[in-house]
Amino acid sequence: MRPSGRQTDQLRAVTLTKDFTKHAEGSVLIEFGDTKVICNATVEEKVPPFLKGQSQGWITAEYGMLPRSTDSRMRREANAGKQGGRTVEIQRLIGRSLRAGVDMKKLGERTIVVDCDVIQADGGTRTASITGGFAALALAVERLIAKGVLTESPILHHVGSVSVGIYQGTPVLDLDYAEDSNAETDMNLVMAEDGRFIEVQGTAEAEPYSLEEMNAMIALGQKGIQELIGLQKNMLAGA
Amino acid sequence: MRPSGRQTDQLRAVTLTKDFTKHAEGSVLIEFGDTKVICNATVEEKVPPFLKGQSQGWITAEYGMLPRSTDSRMRREANAGKQGGRTVEIQRLIGRSLRAGVDMKKLGERTIVVDCDVIQADGGTRTASITGGFAALALAVERLIAKGVLTESPILHHVGSVSVGIYQGTPVLDLDYAEDSNAETDMNLVMAEDGRFIEVQGTAEAEPYSLEEMNAMIALGQKGIQELIGLQKNMLAGA
Amino acid sequence: MRPSGRQTDQLRAVTLTKDFTKHAEGSVLIEFGDTKVICNATVEEKVPPFLKGQSQGWITAEYGMLPRSTDSRMRREANAGKQGGRTVEIQRLIGRSLRAGVDMKKLGERTIVVDCDVIQADGGTRTASITGGFAALALAVERLIAKGVLTESPILHHVGSVSVGIYQGTPVLDLDYAEDSNAETDMNLVMAEDGRFIEVQGTAEAEPYSLEEMNAMIALGQKGIQELIGLQKNMLAGA
Amino acid sequence: MRPSGRQTDQLRAVTLTKDFTKHAEGSVLIEFGDTKVICNATVEEKVPPFLKGQSQGWITAEYGMLPRSTDSRMRREANAGKQGGRTVEIQRLIGRSLRAGVDMKKLGERTIVVDCDVIQADGGTRTASITGGFAALALAVERLIAKGVLTESPILHHVGSVSVGIYQGTPVLDLDYAEDSNAETDMNLVMAEDGRFIEVQGTAEAEPYSLEEMNAMIALGQKGIQELIGLQKNMLAGA
Amino acid sequence: MRPSGRQTDQLRAVTLTKDFTKHAEGSVLIEFGDTKVICNATVEEKVPPFLKGQSQGWITAEYGMLPRSTDSRMRREANAGKQGGRTVEIQRLIGRSLRAGVDMKKLGERTIVVDCDVIQADGGTRTASITGGFAALALAVERLIAKGVLTESPILHHVGSVSVGIYQGTPVLDLDYAEDSNAETDMNLVMAEDGRFIEVQGTAEAEPYSLEEMNAMIALGQKGIQELIGLQKNMLAGA
Amino acid sequence: MRPSGRQTDQLRAVTLTKDFTKHAEGSVLIEFGDTKVICNATVEEKVPPFLKGQSQGWITAEYGMLPRSTDSRMRREANAGKQGGRTVEIQRLIGRSLRAGVDMKKLGERTIVVDCDVIQADGGTRTASITGGFAALALAVERLIAKGVLTESPILHHVGSVSVGIYQGTPVLDLDYAEDSNAETDMNLVMAEDGRFIEVQGTAEAEPYSLEEMNAMIALGQKGIQELIGLQKNMLAGA
Repeated sequence: MRPSGRQTDQLRAVTLTKDFTKHAEGSVLIEFGDTKVICNATVEEKVPPFLKGQSQGWITAEYGMLPRSTDSRMRREANAGKQGGRTVEIQRLIGRSLRAGVDMKKLGERTIVVDCDVIQADGGTRTASITGGFAALALAVERLIAKGVLTESPILHHVGSVSVGIYQGTPVLDLDYAEDSNAETDMNLVMAEDGRFIEVQGTAEAEPYSLEEMNAMIALGQKGIQELIGLQKNMLAGA
Repeated sequence: MRPSGRQTDQLRAVTLTKDFTKHAEGSVLIEFGDTKVICNATVEEKVPPFLKGQSQGWITAEYGMLPRSTDSRMRREANAGKQGGRTVEIQRLIGRSLRAGVDMKKLGERTIVVDCDVIQADGGTRTASITGGFAALALAVERLIAKGVLTESPILHHVGSVSVGIYQGTPVLDLDYAEDSNAETDMNLVMAEDGRFIEVQGTAEAEPYSLEEMNAMIALGQKGIQELIGLQKNMLAGA
Repeated sequence: MRPSGRQTDQLRAVTLTKDFTKHAEGSVLIEFGDTKVICNATVEEKVPPFLKGQSQGWITAEYGMLPRSTDSRMRREANAGKQGGRTVEIQRLIGRSLRAGVDMKKLGERTIVVDCDVIQADGGTRTASITGGFAALALAVERLIAKGVLTESPILHHVGSVSVGIYQGTPVLDLDYAEDSNAETDMNLVMAEDGRFIEVQGTAEAEPYSLEEMNAMIALGQKGIQELIGLQKNMLAGA
Repeated sequence: MRPSGRQTDQLRAVTLTKDFTKHAEGSVLIEFGDTKVICNATVEEKVPPFLKGQSQGWITAEYGMLPRSTDSRMRREANAGKQGGRTVEIQRLIGRSLRAGVDMKKLGERTIVVDCDVIQADGGTRTASITGGFAALALAVERLIAKGVLTESPILHHVGSVSVGIYQGTPVLDLDYAEDSNAETDMNLVMAEDGRFIEVQGTAEAEPYSLEEMNAMIALGQKGIQELIGLQKNMLAGA
Repeated sequence: MRPSGRQTDQLRAVTLTKDFTKHAEGSVLIEFGDTKVICNATVEEKVPPFLKGQSQGWITAEYGMLPRSTDSRMRREANAGKQGGRTVEIQRLIGRSLRAGVDMKKLGERTIVVDCDVIQADGGTRTASITGGFAALALAVERLIAKGVLTESPILHHVGSVSVGIYQGTPVLDLDYAEDSNAETDMNLVMAEDGRFIEVQGTAEAEPYSLEEMNAMIALGQKGIQELIGLQKNMLAGA
Repeated sequence: MRPSGRQTDQLRAVTLTKDFTKHAEGSVLIEFGDTKVICNATVEEKVPPFLKGQSQGWITAEYGMLPRSTDSRMRREANAGKQGGRTVEIQRLIGRSLRAGVDMKKLGERTIVVDCDVIQADGGTRTASITGGFAALALAVERLIAKGVLTESPILHHVGSVSVGIYQGTPVLDLDYAEDSNAETDMNLVMAEDGRFIEVQGTAEAEPYSLEEMNAMIALGQKGIQELIGLQKNMLAGA
């Protein structure tokens, strides 16, 4: 039934490549099938003005797409002179999601900036960015510990994210572009490793959806996020 | 328990004032307690470029806050030279929510722009904007019908919105600022009049939240939105 | 002769509503007939960089119009990415006019920002903004005195403003939109309560105008501003 | 009494150099003492969108200052990314003033853009721009007639401009920077050659000013503008 | 002598990966040692306004760096609201260089946009962008021919580019970051496959350089560019 | 053969007018035939943030063109809201070139900003800006010495610049607009007074050019720059 032939509860092939680029404190290439996002975590020894002197850190994210990451070329935002509304919305979501997994007090007065740059898009770029971004963040934290900058991990729990939706009347996990562009409902879930919710963003694209449909989508999402957090942990463990 | 003394499932005093300003095709002042938003619907006999020649209409929304609608003055966005990320995120949410209640084919090749301007803020400005904005939109549609421009209503069902959250461990309906700024979880719900979902946006501000908490919040939201849609209908009925 | 049936020297119905919104230190809704402007004065305990350390204060103003305050919708300036030339010109005029009524040394090292937001326009929004803005400023000053922050009023004299013009060959007071859009000459006057001039801005829209016409307009303006300053004082006196 | 030793009703040495640059249809360097402004009029065979198809022309102006035209260097506006409020205000004034001297119907469907660029500033740059800008405009019109593009002059009457003010209690004509920066009142006058008013912009810098003072300033301005219009005519006559 | 141990006339390991991303008409990842640039060529069936109706095509380029492609994080240009001066300078150079290898008449009324995005920087990103960008362009042209859109190749000759410089008094080929940041002179060469010049941009970073030094650098560049054009041809030949 | 009738190695009439405007520390009007550029050097007693506390100075340049310095009017960059790519490229070139002639340590912790504003363009504005800008810079330095701010000149050697090119197959010196717009190759040279290179920027406009052609152009440039540096020295010597 699905264009890709996947089961309704089946993720695409997901890989996380550690140390994809050499300069960042944490660098991960995450691939969900044909969706590919470079996630680079940068540690900066300062905090934004509104946090100065409060003995706590901050995590923020930025998101971008290469102009030809998509089927038809998008205008380069740097050239257009501003980030579009969709970009702004996504990078705020990524930032909130990543912060939910970290104890800001234990991070200390420093900022981790996570850049998520989509080099090829095939649906689900924001959830891939959160999942890959958290892995990059965790790598950067590992190195702060290895260097003795931090003595204790500020990570409270892993954070993963996946999209779910209703496609041709059926709840499915991890929509690719062919599904996403025709789905009746699209929901992005961000969860902690214990299955509790960090963000739920569900949008009826055509018809409103029922509580039963929402619950079915949530169940799929919980399953998928468990698998994704497993992959994050494998990557960190050095596989 | 609530700072306002309200019951956990009790809305603030909500009023919708019809024809609040004189130029707009549909103008409503909506008040949720001390939160006051002017919602003006404008009908334009054209559609955005991406819809030209497709025999369908469009609905879009813009959102703004007066600089001193808040406790401390915010910088005027027109002066800053751009709309902030929060503004962009909110106006995209309002637009999607309003479109979900209208049949674009029946609207014909015209655009309705709904401007939501907050003149006083005390929590819940985005959900008030959706609820008041839909009322303004419905007023504008009524007049298109009265003038014979439309022969049939393009409205599929009413759309209402309210916030719910977890405050001091308890699920509550319609958070005011005192609650919102301390809530563990904040969820904005947009629903159709039959209780189905149009948008769910839940964010864990402190701890992740459980499925049980989410379900409790959703039940509160369904009750509140039923009441709000009743108020929209009363206003249109001319009370 | 006038579209509204008013006498040539007659103001529209003018009302000033005290404490229109709850957050600002001084908040006034001013109405000149169908022209309605929210004037909010904010006190900030700092001065612009060019005044630092000079033991004096500053007063500045910003002006905006809701997109649908006018007959056809104007583009939102925050969305356009800049304030238009007319907006800039008006807010500079408001700022200069308000400063002319206040002793900056007695104000001390603080800034009062006066936001004038037009929610409904029917001509004369800039003069209504000055008149209402001065009332909001005076309210904020009253509260600084009541709180003991100031021991002496920095207000030198009240400041009021009105438009005058030549309409169908006749000098008239307080042009509404129907007159303004057809006037041969349009003049904005700002005066102190003793009848002296703070700003005169006269523009020939069609023919140049003579000294006799200018003097007739000035006489009308002096009468109107006397009445407006009376209304400001009534509002402050608590009517 | 005046820093320059001039009489109260005496202009600075004023010169208009015809054809100062070679590309513009009308090019004039105007000097008021040490204030020097290049005024270039460009004829474009099109009108702004709001005038299309109305068988009439348009005149607009732009104003700029070289960064080091002033005593301390100003930031280059092109680099700052926007024109400042003062610039916007001035170029709108120049545009309105020039339009007041021309019959837009007789100009035909074309636009004359007048660029006024200050290369050295010593007070009175906006009034010099109007006076020099009108001369450049008149030159461009002469050439449209000479080329047979126009058969009749669209010029209704010459337009000149000068500043007047109250300096140390005395009304004076044509303030230079030393006076302008210390004047109690500063008024910019734009007049037609018959002495009637096109624009009056008077601002109390310190004390409000009286009607008597205003009338004295106006009388000085009328005298000065007569002289300036004489100089415009001499330049056009080919002196 | 060189930090990398290379000979003075030795390129870094250079690889060109064909079809690196899936959406672009021509996609190449070029690596010069640790410098990695994604070059994507997009074919658009339109030309810029200044070329409309002239029966010829256009080639343009855009350049960007991921924020953490460098050792310390750079601000994201989309977020800063404009492209920096260095970016603008580089993308103009890339565009001119690519155009020099193509017959615009034979290309027909279409545009090829080449996006060069640096994912990891270690010196020489602009010359890598030109060399990789030309390869991506050639791939896109091949496909236009394969699809029958073009019947004849518009490519006049291959274009390659490399940097040369004076490092510790010695002319060297293909500077990496360790050399580039300490070089006395830095020269970017763009050449056709017959060894003639398309662009020469030489900059003395410390001392001015002599004609002898320039000639030595040019000889190194000619050798390097021959090798690079060989690699482009191998990639196209399908190796 | 040349449109102007000049010899292939002949400069246009070049003049440098000292103290062209009165406010700048160094002000020069440079004319290359009909190309006229005002070059103003401003001394500021501060350095950019990246140089603070390093006991050295900085030199930077800005470049602009009056809108009607050209045959058809260009849009004013301040109005467009940003500097175009060509402007950015040119002002970076001017800045680098001027810095190459000055010892930043000897300049001390101050910045010299050189503004180059083209009032009339006829080809070669960037090379005229460098040549005139260096003269203005040298004037400003002379005055710093005269005032005792500097005890020793920080100037290492004079810097001059000229364009050369291939016009109708022949290498020529100092292209005017008629040549520049039809040249096969255009090269801008910046040299020190000893004939060594500071910048070489050669661009093939049509065909790539050979090493022989480049060497012929360089020889012409060396001759021209020698003459230009002679004129700079004459101007400083007070002729």
